[in-house]
Amino acid sequence: MLILRNATLATMVPGGTAYGLIENGALAIRGSDIIWLGPESEMPTSMSVWPQENLGGRLVTPALIDCHTHIVFGGNRAREFELRLKGASYEEVARAGGGILSTVTATRAASEEELLASALPRVDALLAEGVSTIEIKSGYGLDVETELRMLRAARRIGEQRQVRIRTSYLGAHAVPPEFKGRADDYIDEVCRVALDRAAEEGLADAVDGFCEGIAFSPEQLDRLFSRAAQVGLPVKLHAEQLSDLGGAKLAAYHGALSADHLEYLGADGIAALANAGTTAVLLPGAFYTLREPQLPPLQALRDAGVPIAIATDCNPGSSPLTSLLLTMNMACTLFRLTPEEALAGATREAARALGIADAGSLEVGKRADLAVWDVREPAELAYRIGFNPLYKRYFAGTA
Amino acid sequence: MLILRNATLATMVPGGTAYGLIENGALAIRGSDIIWLGPESEMPTSMSVWPQENLGGRLVTPALIDCHTHIVFGGNRAREFELRLKGASYEEVARAGGGILSTVTATRAASEEELLASALPRVDALLAEGVSTIEIKSGYGLDVETELRMLRAARRIGEQRQVRIRTSYLGAHAVPPEFKGRADDYIDEVCRVALDRAAEEGLADAVDGFCEGIAFSPEQLDRLFSRAAQVGLPVKLHAEQLSDLGGAKLAAYHGALSADHLEYLGADGIAALANAGTTAVLLPGAFYTLREPQLPPLQALRDAGVPIAIATDCNPGSSPLTSLLLTMNMACTLFRLTPEEALAGATREAARALGIADAGSLEVGKRADLAVWDVREPAELAYRIGFNPLYKRYFAGTA
Ligand SMILES: [Zn+2]
Ligand SMILES: [Zn+2]
Repeated sequence: MLILRNATLATMVPGGTAYGLIENGALAIRGSDIIWLGPESEMPTSMSVWPQENLGGRLVTPALIDCHTHIVFGGNRAREFELRLKGASYEEVARAGGGILSTVTATRAASEEELLASALPRVDALLAEGVSTIEIKSGYGLDVETELRMLRAARRIGEQRQVRIRTSYLGAHAVPPEFKGRADDYIDEVCRVALDRAAEEGLADAVDGFCEGIAFSPEQLDRLFSRAAQVGLPVKLHAEQLSDLGGAKLAAYHGALSADHLEYLGADGIAALANAGTTAVLLPGAFYTLREPQLPPLQALRDAGVPIAIATDCNPGSSPLTSLLLTMNMACTLFRLTPEEALAGATREAARALGIADAGSLEVGKRADLAVWDVREPAELAYRIGFNPLYKRYFAGTA
Repeated sequence: MLILRNATLATMVPGGTAYGLIENGALAIRGSDIIWLGPESEMPTSMSVWPQENLGGRLVTPALIDCHTHIVFGGNRAREFELRLKGASYEEVARAGGGILSTVTATRAASEEELLASALPRVDALLAEGVSTIEIKSGYGLDVETELRMLRAARRIGEQRQVRIRTSYLGAHAVPPEFKGRADDYIDEVCRVALDRAAEEGLADAVDGFCEGIAFSPEQLDRLFSRAAQVGLPVKLHAEQLSDLGGAKLAAYHGALSADHLEYLGADGIAALANAGTTAVLLPGAFYTLREPQLPPLQALRDAGVPIAIATDCNPGSSPLTSLLLTMNMACTLFRLTPEEALAGATREAARALGIADAGSLEVGKRADLAVWDVREPAELAYRIGFNPLYKRYFAGTA
């Protein structure tokens, strides 16, 4: 039992004050859960004998949630980054072994231990910023065994660190070289097989795909998502990142938890997401790295009432980003989210994008996954760039 | 005496290998200085009995140098950031007390102790990334006493932390409200007086100004720079950030150490900088925050042989940025510097922009200001976003 007192609580409970803010607040933890919170003056007298921590007026928010990452992978793409900036053409980069397939090669060559070891420093960077929950996708194996190995490495992160991991099976990330020109065969012979294995072995919490001209068609993903439904797994989708193929509509049709990226999302896709209650996950790190000219349709998403989350998209190619605070700043600076939307996007709405009901806001009965910050007002979290004001993190009630 | 061995040395000495790279290298420190470096196999046998540290193949670079900051200031502008993103007009922001004058008000109200205390966490964020030297400007006082107080607070940072501070007197940053419409009077009655005091008291290492329609004209700055020459201080200039007023030419005429920002720099300004040997300091954090559409003329600067440095421009309004590593990534991603140019810009060329001859590269006789990184190749430093791979920092030979 523990009382956190003399705190500013950004509960992120919607419908009341901005940020669901409670000034001069207190919060009571029993076991792993929040059992009371409110203005300190209203704290039940029975709690006055509990152990207390005086937070000196600091800000308490729900712990952050990174709801879209590819944080498990082999190698890195620093050399490719350098080649491109030295003016190499895409062909030259490809000849030098660059692009997503270089990560596939490095990931296939890595053991589960190596995948785990290389991911942990990136995970630690997120945890140091008050992150409690990370979604991690497979998708750099593109063969059955490596896809499963990535998911096992992801699961083990949750054993080695105080963090909740949600895995997404993303076999439908790219067509591997050995199936070049035979995407349908790849879906049937590899993707579906690995999906079944991942489901059997409890390695995946969701099924993801990449709907794009350079990846898979809505029809191919429709087949995969139908199989996901048969094995009882929810779906999510990389959609409308580079063009509008109707991915969001497909995702909505399958009741997806989220549709992600969405720069090229049109009005029909927005309506579909709104009707399905699917969360839009915006990924400013990839937008920034790719110098994408097309902004996601933020105002139309707001107008339609689509929930909006944000995430790092941490991956070695288009978003080698391991700061969710910086992602919040980018969401504001580049996409024009408000700081409140950015914080909601990295807490409450990120939980929604993962189908997590017991975290993402400060409410009685939810897990005491908390971030305590050395700032006075919540807007400071998104305002600063490259600064980490975390004071303390609580994971399931434990500092 | 100390030998750092089993290291990859990015010496940043130009003219040889990329990054001046020495593989399987060693570096010998005596006192505060580098007294030998080279391939480990060539290490003088007399050194074999010295204390050694095996760096396990890690990368050693010159410690980073942030050559343009406004890191000492009162308050913050998170509320203004939020107001703008909620759609407030510039007038509404101004009415709510926003803009640079809100920082002036907060800075005038702050004691030297308060200015120091609020700057230290920002400084610490830089030091944690292997920064050894920080330039700090005044310019939020705009009256004699507050300008001097800012410079004193900046000097004290160098006493409280293992960091070298270079101060720039920036009275000519903005016209304060009490001199509205009387910029000339402000230059004569305040700027010049504070400049003389700063010089007398040894508080300034350089004189800076802001040449822009919303700030000061080349003529006004010319007078101030002439006075700087009389008191023996070098100059630098915020030039061509929002328009081309010929600031770079003015800076070059006065033999400035640097001209900074430069998005709107034209061909004549580039030629002037090249002739004067003035360093161009590019500030991608402000470019990013302001969503500036105009890129600085990188290729023309390269072609003319103008030295190019980069810096955080850490300030509460247009660049609340406290990561020089992220600045390196932004310089590559947004401005298209190569990773080697970005690292040179935050080491060798940043030293040049400050007139510092004894740091910025790994060479015999230079200070042992070193950063040791948990990366294999130098391009990784600029490639990653929001990740700090610093393993160890040496400041004047001491870890
Ligand atoms: Zn992704
Ligand atoms: Zn500046």
